[in-house]
Amino acid sequence: MSHGELSYLPMEMESTDADSDTAAKYTHFKVKAPIVAGFSLMCFVWALESRILSRFVLQHLKNANQIIKIFHKSRFHESPMYVPCYDIKDKEETSVIYMDPALTAPERLAVALNCLNPTPVTRDVPIKSFHRWTICDYSKAYKLGDVTPTMVARRLLKAIEDSLQPAPGMGFFINYSAEDIIKQAELSTARYKKGQPLSILDGVPIAVKDEIDCLPYPTTAGTRWLHNVRKVKDDAVIIQSLRECGAMLVGKTNMNELGMGVTTINSNYGAARNPYDSNRYTGGSSGGSAAVVAAGLCPASLGVDGGGSVRIPSALCGIVGFKGTFGRISSSGVVPLNWTLGTIGVHSATVEDALLIYTAINGNLPNGQIISVPPPATLPLLKELPQPQGDCQISGITFAKYTQWFEDCDEVIYTTCYRALDAIQRCYGCKIVEVALPEINEMRLGHFITLGTECSTSLGMDYRKWGQQVSAMDTRATFAMYSSFSNHEFLTALRIRHRQMHFHMQIFKKADIIVTPTTGCTAQPISHRALDVGELNYIDGAKLMHYQLAANFLGLPAITIPVGYDAEGMPIGLQLLGRPWAEATLLSVASSFEKLFSSRKPIVFYDLLS
Amino acid sequence: MSHGELSYLPMEMESTDADSDTAAKYTHFKVKAPIVAGFSLMCFVWALESRILSRFVLQHLKNANQIIKIFHKSRFHESPMYVPCYDIKDKEETSVIYMDPALTAPERLAVALNCLNPTPVTRDVPIKSFHRWTICDYSKAYKLGDVTPTMVARRLLKAIEDSLQPAPGMGFFINYSAEDIIKQAELSTARYKKGQPLSILDGVPIAVKDEIDCLPYPTTAGTRWLHNVRKVKDDAVIIQSLRECGAMLVGKTNMNELGMGVTTINSNYGAARNPYDSNRYTGGSSGGSAAVVAAGLCPASLGVDGGGSVRIPSALCGIVGFKGTFGRISSSGVVPLNWTLGTIGVHSATVEDALLIYTAINGNLPNGQIISVPPPATLPLLKELPQPQGDCQISGITFAKYTQWFEDCDEVIYTTCYRALDAIQRCYGCKIVEVALPEINEMRLGHFITLGTECSTSLGMDYRKWGQQVSAMDTRATFAMYSSFSNHEFLTALRIRHRQMHFHMQIFKKADIIVTPTTGCTAQPISHRALDVGELNYIDGAKLMHYQLAANFLGLPAITIPVGYDAEGMPIGLQLLGRPWAEATLLSVASSFEKLFSSRKPIVFYDLLS
Repeated sequence: MSHGELSYLPMEMESTDADSDTAAKYTHFKVKAPIVAGFSLMCFVWALESRILSRFVLQHLKNANQIIKIFHKSRFHESPMYVPCYDIKDKEETSVIYMDPALTAPERLAVALNCLNPTPVTRDVPIKSFHRWTICDYSKAYKLGDVTPTMVARRLLKAIEDSLQPAPGMGFFINYSAEDIIKQAELSTARYKKGQPLSILDGVPIAVKDEIDCLPYPTTAGTRWLHNVRKVKDDAVIIQSLRECGAMLVGKTNMNELGMGVTTINSNYGAARNPYDSNRYTGGSSGGSAAVVAAGLCPASLGVDGGGSVRIPSALCGIVGFKGTFGRISSSGVVPLNWTLGTIGVHSATVEDALLIYTAINGNLPNGQIISVPPPATLPLLKELPQPQGDCQISGITFAKYTQWFEDCDEVIYTTCYRALDAIQRCYGCKIVEVALPEINEMRLGHFITLGTECSTSLGMDYRKWGQQVSAMDTRATFAMYSSFSNHEFLTALRIRHRQMHFHMQIFKKADIIVTPTTGCTAQPISHRALDVGELNYIDGAKLMHYQLAANFLGLPAITIPVGYDAEGMPIGLQLLGRPWAEATLLSVASSFEKLFSSRKPIVFYDLLS
Repeated sequence: MSHGELSYLPMEMESTDADSDTAAKYTHFKVKAPIVAGFSLMCFVWALESRILSRFVLQHLKNANQIIKIFHKSRFHESPMYVPCYDIKDKEETSVIYMDPALTAPERLAVALNCLNPTPVTRDVPIKSFHRWTICDYSKAYKLGDVTPTMVARRLLKAIEDSLQPAPGMGFFINYSAEDIIKQAELSTARYKKGQPLSILDGVPIAVKDEIDCLPYPTTAGTRWLHNVRKVKDDAVIIQSLRECGAMLVGKTNMNELGMGVTTINSNYGAARNPYDSNRYTGGSSGGSAAVVAAGLCPASLGVDGGGSVRIPSALCGIVGFKGTFGRISSSGVVPLNWTLGTIGVHSATVEDALLIYTAINGNLPNGQIISVPPPATLPLLKELPQPQGDCQISGITFAKYTQWFEDCDEVIYTTCYRALDAIQRCYGCKIVEVALPEINEMRLGHFITLGTECSTSLGMDYRKWGQQVSAMDTRATFAMYSSFSNHEFLTALRIRHRQMHFHMQIFKKADIIVTPTTGCTAQPISHRALDVGELNYIDGAKLMHYQLAANFLGLPAITIPVGYDAEGMPIGLQLLGRPWAEATLLSVASSFEKLFSSRKPIVFYDLLS
């Protein structure tokens, strides 16, 4: 008694009962949830956590947000897509070289560097506009002996101390150990002295979101309790790869409590503050990791992206944020806040550095998957400004744009993103096709229910025993909602995933990349009541996550690149969403965009090299 | 924010809070559920379907059956195993030939026949003991011109009519069309006349469980309503394959309503009666399909196995029942009663015929999987009685046996199965190792919750709208329980699946095949109140399903072969459970067993050939 079809190709399609014309119509959907803080938030949490009352409150919320209509009164013919896995055959890109899975992390980096046509190690680096130091810059400086990793480590520690003034400071880190950083730096310095750095990453400072296991630190995931229950026994697999490359791991960065939020306002560890305006948030949940890159403390850092958590803060902090296809990178040693949505992501100042870090950590893959990196044919784009109207690789790229959705955000965002698209089109002659993506709201709800189910199942027992009483009120409210779904609602969410996947694959028949703004708004001022008494604000959250969810729900690769600034000087990001396994195309195209837009220096910035 | 690890190898293991010594202890677990019929069943259903009362009843049942303890008070460290998929690399068996996926169904059959060293088409078939006609027998008889498919079709229709006497008859079929059968037979006869049969299956009668789409019939899945909501537009993919081979599809067989039960006592279409004793049930849910093979109406038939549904009735009717690894066979065109547990299975009189049918339908596979059939080196076993102490292939096979579990069934069952094991050991010198399988009850509950969640999500909307009022009381009670689980309980079931998979893989390091009885009891008398007023009896059901669930929950290949009879002459089956993708080994070993045990002729038997 079964129907095991899991592949997405042969499936029965039928529009929902709601409206068969949905595909053609775009409806802006408003999240219906109270914005509560302080005492009213406490009352809301009390109601959600009470046995009887919660039924009524939750039923009301489900009704208001169309969960009843979509999950109980619509018919879906698709089978559930339990895990966003794609046929490995689909991933083969033309002119991409594939790496031998047997290579070590430093060997992989060497291959990637070869693709990048590295400039020789000389002193003649011309810096035209504002420029954050890149991994190559660090490596060069170390090789030339201008600075040593130990010197950089000292400057870094001084910068971190500075960032704590005036109290409570910028809130970048949850944890860092001066002793451990200096120890790593000295070992690295000794290696350079002997002329034997382990790789281009040797001695390069890299920060790590406090959701990823990295010795000697505990992993709090932004809580006050998780590290007491879940002890760190070893480095996460990806951290082991970075260590093999000699990277200097400089501490654990701030995040929303249990990743539940997209602001990095954390009542346990303070708010991470945006280097472009320290009164504004960084976005989240990997806000600390994005901010340290924006502020110049590291050329790159690691985050985890389950609902935009890497891309949102990267956009709001004016840097590059990249997540790959689900399943590419080992998540062993990462707190299981969910199982089928999130994946490790990279924050970096440049696309090239995103590629380098991604290559280094991309070595422990499930089930016979192999690694792809952009090939010599496309990667020179990363080093040279592409020639206008030139015969470059990306001139054959087609972008898909859903205009009504694209423009359903603050005006400054979409006008800036349009300008970026115009520039790339003028420069390279790429094509833009108009598409429609149906049932975006269904996808949003499906993602929320999947995230909630996975998170509350994974952590539920420990949370109720150890966490609930010491968690922030907004976390408690979210956890109560996460735990409230039925088996039917969850499995229906996975059917919606299948259906959305089909919609996306239809678009990918016509276009290589779906282009949107990264967020619906720029970084907003930190609400004091959010910090002081806690605040639940799903409405602002929805604006930040407006364009994020397909990459997580469907496991697609995505990247955000900075393309401009709003009137207050806050950064704006453009997002590129690619086909499964097509990271190489995505990085090449992102690199072409990158060269067309100059960056502004943030107000809080530390120069560790010069 | 994520932990995407889905592969089963690198996982954190921890025993449940309950007891770290569970592995060593076997506990017989008694299902706690009322045995209710008639008025008390109606009251039970009324309580389960009421909004308020159901909470208390279900809470009580969950508590009594340890669902609260296991799913809410135990810690699991495994990530969910959403789908029982295995690395394709694991499937490579030594001395197995792999078929070109581009072959058509008749071409595949030709390759399989080559492996079987087919005896030449002559009249000198010596029949020693009771022997059901096999596919080769039909093919030979047609080729020699002794009978034609049209003659067989006429005899079959006469036999079906006979089986309806005295009313209500044997209850084999839900639907059959004399006109359609004769039409197929005449076309087949014409092909033989021209000397151009499509394959060895040409004109061979095959019955199909009424859960699989097969024109011109509706698909009722044993209900009075599903076919009105879900119209059959085309043959299921596997039926298309059988038609390509010229098979004569002779109708839709009886089953439990929506597969909810393991008896094939169906109040809509009558009980399927056991050919060995028409007062006893056949087992189920594919009981009709097993009974028609046992009674000689077809050499083979199709069933669907989501919780033992093919293997249980095969064992109880004294025939072979085989299911392959999850994902091998297309389930497109099969009623989605669940998505990750069930798979098409074959009922047949011999292991060889199971192989032939499996080869024919095994042509439409997801994601790059390829087909394996037993190779020339192992398959001669299928034709020749193996030599005692001979140097045959299976002498290297190791069986795993968990004695306490093996013996947790009726005495006649395990003594008969022991005798079979002794015989095979004496004959071939195979090894038997003692193993322990922990947490069998957890697996049982995990399977139940997964089945319930998938079934109620798949059919829920239609069931509530069209089905509930016209369904049998036992179906309604089961459906209410199926719908009662939370997202947390379902996802925890999938974590238990991962954990059990690990336990099984540990055993498969030491042994090739896990051997158990197929069922905990033989076919029991049909309870009249079950037929008249409906009966809910989970306790007898648990006895029949006692050894079944790993094959479904973990997607492993399994086969049951008849090895003896109880004092009343009711058949007893032995079950072999294999590694993922190791169907070839399983079929070879099953074939060696088969040659050692003679069959008894059932009381109801129709000879269509001689």
